[in-house]
Amino acid sequence: MRRKLFDLLRLVANSRWGRFIIRILVVHMNFILPLERLIETRTLIAFHHPRPAYPLHIVLMPKEAIQNLMVLPLDNTVFMQDMFASVQQLIVQFDLETSGYRLICNGGPNQDIPQLHFHLISEVSIDERA
Amino acid sequence: MRRKLFDLLRLVANSRWGRFIIRILVVHMNFILPLERLIETRTLIAFHHPRPAYPLHIVLMPKEAIQNLMVLPLDNTVFMQDMFASVQQLIVQFDLETSGYRLICNGGPNQDIPQLHFHLISEVSIDERA
Repeated sequence: MRRKLFDLLRLVANSRWGRFIIRILVVHMNFILPLERLIETRTLIAFHHPRPAYPLHIVLMPKEAIQNLMVLPLDNTVFMQDMFASVQQLIVQFDLETSGYRLICNGGPNQDIPQLHFHLISEVSIDERA
Repeated sequence: MRRKLFDLLRLVANSRWGRFIIRILVVHMNFILPLERLIETRTLIAFHHPRPAYPLHIVLMPKEAIQNLMVLPLDNTVFMQDMFASVQQLIVQFDLETSGYRLICNGGPNQDIPQLHFHLISEVSIDERA
């Protein structure tokens, strides 16, 4: 269910009205999104990727509509602090200093939805970590 | 020459005195490093990776000794702003909105030298971009 909704959302995001719809969803209605939330702050949400590409695949996304890294306002230090604080919290929570991790932000044609987001991933599965 | 020095540095970085030597080099003597500098601000340097793993492979590194993402001080907003401002400048300079890019920070066993650094990479070669 969660995955199908996500696939639909990804389809919509890349349609003509995608940016508008994403803006409404992320900024005003993010509480309706069926996400496994890990962290929520004033400025961002962090959740398990509905279609994980790695054994651990977390997405961190600002609540404000920011299309990509290129248009991140440089005076928005509250979001920057929230981002790095959340990443540090998740590193501890999932013991990523031991298993290894990558924090990734894709841009241009590498970005799949028109809303800034960071991936925090680990290539080591939870079984291998145990 | 640049590559051989880099290989030596990487070897030293992972030795017993690595953290100490990296600290001295990065904080007090970074002007001696034979790097192709692209940006230098109060808080960071950005340079072409001496051993690129991608057609475009830039490294952004704080001048202050910060071992990894986990210990990035959350009140160091000047570095965070410099980081994102530099990334935005490089996106424009290398037309990365067109060719695509990834901003990556590796941690734990995925990190190769004990000094925080971000990779800004593009999988599209300059020839393909032209």
